[in-house]
Amino acid sequence: MAQKLTKRSEDYSKWYNELVVRADLAENSAVRGSMVIKPYGYAIWEKMQAELDRMFKETGHENAYFPLFIPKSFFSREASHVEGFAKECAVVTHYRLKNDDEGKGVVVDPDARLEEELIVRPTSETIIWDTYKNWIQSYRDLPLKINQWANVVRWEMRTRLFLRTAEFLWQEGHTAHASREEAIEEAETMLGIYSEFAENFMAIPVIKGLKTESERFAGAEETYCIEAMMQDGKALQAGTSHFLGQNFAKAFDVKYASKEGKEEYVWATSWGVSTRLMGALVMTHSDDQGLVLPPNLAPYQVVIVPIYKGQEQLDQISEKVNEIQSRLRAKGIRVKFDNRDTHKPGWKFAEYELKGVPLRIAMGPRDMENNTVELARRDTLSKEVVSVDGLEDQVAALLEEIQSNLLNKAKDFRESHSYTSDDWEDFKAKIEAGGFVWAHWDGSSETEEKIKAETKATIRCIPLDQQAEEGKCVYTGAPSKGRVIFAKAY
Amino acid sequence: MAQKLTKRSEDYSKWYNELVVRADLAENSAVRGSMVIKPYGYAIWEKMQAELDRMFKETGHENAYFPLFIPKSFFSREASHVEGFAKECAVVTHYRLKNDDEGKGVVVDPDARLEEELIVRPTSETIIWDTYKNWIQSYRDLPLKINQWANVVRWEMRTRLFLRTAEFLWQEGHTAHASREEAIEEAETMLGIYSEFAENFMAIPVIKGLKTESERFAGAEETYCIEAMMQDGKALQAGTSHFLGQNFAKAFDVKYASKEGKEEYVWATSWGVSTRLMGALVMTHSDDQGLVLPPNLAPYQVVIVPIYKGQEQLDQISEKVNEIQSRLRAKGIRVKFDNRDTHKPGWKFAEYELKGVPLRIAMGPRDMENNTVELARRDTLSKEVVSVDGLEDQVAALLEEIQSNLLNKAKDFRESHSYTSDDWEDFKAKIEAGGFVWAHWDGSSETEEKIKAETKATIRCIPLDQQAEEGKCVYTGAPSKGRVIFAKAY
Repeated sequence: MAQKLTKRSEDYSKWYNELVVRADLAENSAVRGSMVIKPYGYAIWEKMQAELDRMFKETGHENAYFPLFIPKSFFSREASHVEGFAKECAVVTHYRLKNDDEGKGVVVDPDARLEEELIVRPTSETIIWDTYKNWIQSYRDLPLKINQWANVVRWEMRTRLFLRTAEFLWQEGHTAHASREEAIEEAETMLGIYSEFAENFMAIPVIKGLKTESERFAGAEETYCIEAMMQDGKALQAGTSHFLGQNFAKAFDVKYASKEGKEEYVWATSWGVSTRLMGALVMTHSDDQGLVLPPNLAPYQVVIVPIYKGQEQLDQISEKVNEIQSRLRAKGIRVKFDNRDTHKPGWKFAEYELKGVPLRIAMGPRDMENNTVELARRDTLSKEVVSVDGLEDQVAALLEEIQSNLLNKAKDFRESHSYTSDDWEDFKAKIEAGGFVWAHWDGSSETEEKIKAETKATIRCIPLDQQAEEGKCVYTGAPSKGRVIFAKAY
Repeated sequence: MAQKLTKRSEDYSKWYNELVVRADLAENSAVRGSMVIKPYGYAIWEKMQAELDRMFKETGHENAYFPLFIPKSFFSREASHVEGFAKECAVVTHYRLKNDDEGKGVVVDPDARLEEELIVRPTSETIIWDTYKNWIQSYRDLPLKINQWANVVRWEMRTRLFLRTAEFLWQEGHTAHASREEAIEEAETMLGIYSEFAENFMAIPVIKGLKTESERFAGAEETYCIEAMMQDGKALQAGTSHFLGQNFAKAFDVKYASKEGKEEYVWATSWGVSTRLMGALVMTHSDDQGLVLPPNLAPYQVVIVPIYKGQEQLDQISEKVNEIQSRLRAKGIRVKFDNRDTHKPGWKFAEYELKGVPLRIAMGPRDMENNTVELARRDTLSKEVVSVDGLEDQVAALLEEIQSNLLNKAKDFRESHSYTSDDWEDFKAKIEAGGFVWAHWDGSSETEEKIKAETKATIRCIPLDQQAEEGKCVYTGAPSKGRVIFAKAY
C-alpha cells in the first residue's frame, strides 16, 4: 500500500477526499464537477438501490422513466420552483456539431439552434406533471405512485465527490392524490422508509423533521427530512420528502373528477435520495485506516486471504476455502476468495482494511493443521483464531453484531455531540465546537438568517417528535414552544 | 375498451404506434423525440435489465458510472468517431437561467456561457477511455471489464417510440485488454450473450453476423451484430458488439507495461443494447388483439379475474384465489389478482389481452362448485376449463410451452420469409415483398450503396456461420464466396 491516509483529526475534509478516491469509490472526471463512480463504489450504490427499490415496490410504487430534457418554458410555470433552480441549470441550445471551415476541429453548428432551449433536469416535477395531466381524469386514476431512477444535473460551483456534484444519481418519487390528507400521509410514509433504510441498512441514525420555510424545496408546501450527524459534528441531510400541495397541479392544470363528479386539483408529493448517501456512509463509519462498511451494504461481507508458500500449500488451502465458501454462501453471505498470486497477504490485508470489508478470514498452514482460521473484524480492528467447525454460524452472527455495533456507535456519537443551549454565547461556542444544538427559536426567517450569518449554523429541522416546552429564542428572546436543531451542515 | 387496434395487415406502422401507447408501454413527451416510458413498459425493461445484468456479472463484468457530459474536444480525438456522431449531438452551452428584464419569464443568462461546450453523451467511448488512461498502467490492470446502465442522446430527426428516440436508455460495456485476440474473444462472447438473451428471454431468434465496413460503428475495426426479423419482414438490429482495435487507446494515449516490460497500446471492445429491444419485442410477437409477451419477461405471467355477483360471492372466490396465488408464487410464478370492483370482467379480459399477459385465469360461482377455473392462453387465444388441483404445475408447464411456442413461431416466420436470390430482378421483387434475401455480393461498398439506392435494402450482416459457396454478385456479377443477408431495416 501507498502512504497512510490523512488522519480525521488533522484534516477531516482531506481525509474524506483521499478515502473516497483511494478506496475506489469515485474520482473526479475531466468534466468540471462531474464524478466517475468506480466499480466498488457503484456496487455499494447498487445495494442501496436494490433495498430502496424493494421498499418502494412493497408500498405500492411503480417505476417509470421521463425525459432528461425539460423545455425552458415549463420552469416558469411554478414561480418558486424556477426561482430555486434557475441559477444552476445546464442548458442545451444546439443539436449539431460540424467541422470547422478553418480546420479547428469540430464546432457547434450555428444553424442548428433549438427554437426553445432545453434544460437538463435538475429535478423532474415539471415534466412529470405535464405528463400526469394526460394520465389523470378521474378519482379512479388516483393515487398515482411513481418513482424514477435517474441522473440529474445542478450546476454547483463548489463540488465534492458524492456530497455535491454537478451530475448525480438519484431516485425521485412523484405521487398524485385525491386529498390533502392522503398526500401528507404519503410524504410521511416515504420519510419513514428513508429513515428505516438509513438505520437498518446504512447503520446511520437519523432525526425526522420538518424544514423551516427558508430551507424548503422550491415549490413545496412542506419539506420533511432526515438529518444525520457526521464524525466532524456537521449535519448531513440524507433524504427529503415534500408535500407539494396543489402547486404543480395548478401550474400544469391537472384536475380530476371526484366521486361526486366535482372537478378538483390533484394533491402531490415528491421525495428523493441520491448518491449523496454514499458520502454520508463514508463520513459516518470510516476511520483513519479507511472505509468501514455496514455488512448490509458491503459488496463483499467477508474476504478470505490464503497465506502460503508454493503452489502445493495454496492448493491445499484452496480446497478447504472452497468448502468454507460454500457454507458461507449457503447462508446468503457474500464472500470473496482473493487467491491472486500477484499480491502478498500483507498488501491484501491493507487493501481490504482500506475498502472496509466487514470481516477478513486468513488461513495458513498452521490453521490447516489446527482446523482454524484467523477472523478479523474491520469495525473494532480485533482478531481471533476460531475453529472452522460452525464458522458459518459464527460469521453470520458476527455480521449482525457488526451491523448493530455500527448503528450504536453512531448513535452514541450523536448523543455525545448533541447539546441544549439557552444562551447566545454558549450557543455560539457549541456550534463552533461542532454537533447538534437543540435551542429555542422564535419562528421567524429573519432570526434564522441572522443566526446563520453569525454562526454558519442553519436549522436542520423542527423534529417531528418535538417536545412541547416553553422557552425563549436563543437569539431574540422572543417566546418559543419547543426546540429546533441547529448545526453546521454539508 | 375503446375502439379496436388498427390491423397489422392494414397499416403495420400505425398498428405498432397504437399498440405501444394503448398497452401502456410508452408515449411521446412534450420534448421533441423524447418518450415517456410508462410503468408497464418500464417493468418489462426492468426484467430485461435484471437478466442482462446477471449475465454480465456472471461473465466477470462490473458496473460503474461515467459522466453524462463529454467535453467537445474529446470528440475530435478519434476521427471516424466524431464523423459518426457530430451531426446528432445535443450541446450544452450555458449553465444558468435568469429572469428576463423585460418580464418574459426566464431566459438563458448570456454571462453564463461555458468555456468549452459539453456534449450530452451519444455513447461514452471518449469519456471512458480518457478515464481508463488513469486506471491502466500494467498488464496486472487488465482485462478491465466494465458496464454502464445509462441514458444517451442522439438527435434523430425522425423518431418512433422505442425504435428511434432522441433520448434512450441502454447499457454500454467498455472493456480493455492486453491483446487483440482477447479483445476479439470478448466482443464475440458478448455477442453470444446478446443472442442467448434474445432467444431465451425475448423469444426472438437472431442471426449473428458482422457488419460491412459502411455499417460499422464509428471508431470500430469490426462490428458484430444480432439481426432479428419483424412481422413485416423488415430487419431490426437488436444488439451490437464492437472490436475497437487500438483506436481509442491511441486517441487517448492508453498504454500498459506488458509482462516483458514493453509499453503497448491497449485493445478495446464496446457493446450495447437499448430500449430499442422493447420495439423488437412488440413487433415480433404481438397480434391484432394487442401485445403478446413471452412469459420470461412478462411483469405478470398470470392474471386472475373473479366473476361474481355481490360481495359474498367475491369473498368466497377470493379465499380460493388466495390459496391458488400462494401455490403459484411458491413456484416462482408472477401472478396478479385483479379484484377491482370498478371494472367488469369483460373489460378486464380485453385489458389483459391488450397488455399481453401470457395466461388468464377466470373463476366464477360455477367454477367454485366444480373446483375448476377457466384458463386462457394469450399466444393462441385458446381456453379450457381445468381442475384447481395441480393447477400450479399445469401453469408452470404452460408458461414454458408458451415461451418456446413464441420462439418457434418467430423462427418459422423468419424461415418462411427468408429467400435466396441470384437474379437482380428476382432480388428486387423479393426485397420489395419483404423478408431476408440471402444473396452474393462482390464485397465492395460501392455495390452495397447502389443496391441500397435502388431497393432501400442494406446488408444486415455477413453471417458468422456463412457457408462457403462460389457465386456471382447479384448486382455486378463479380465473384463472391458466400451469401450475405439483405433486407430493409428499422
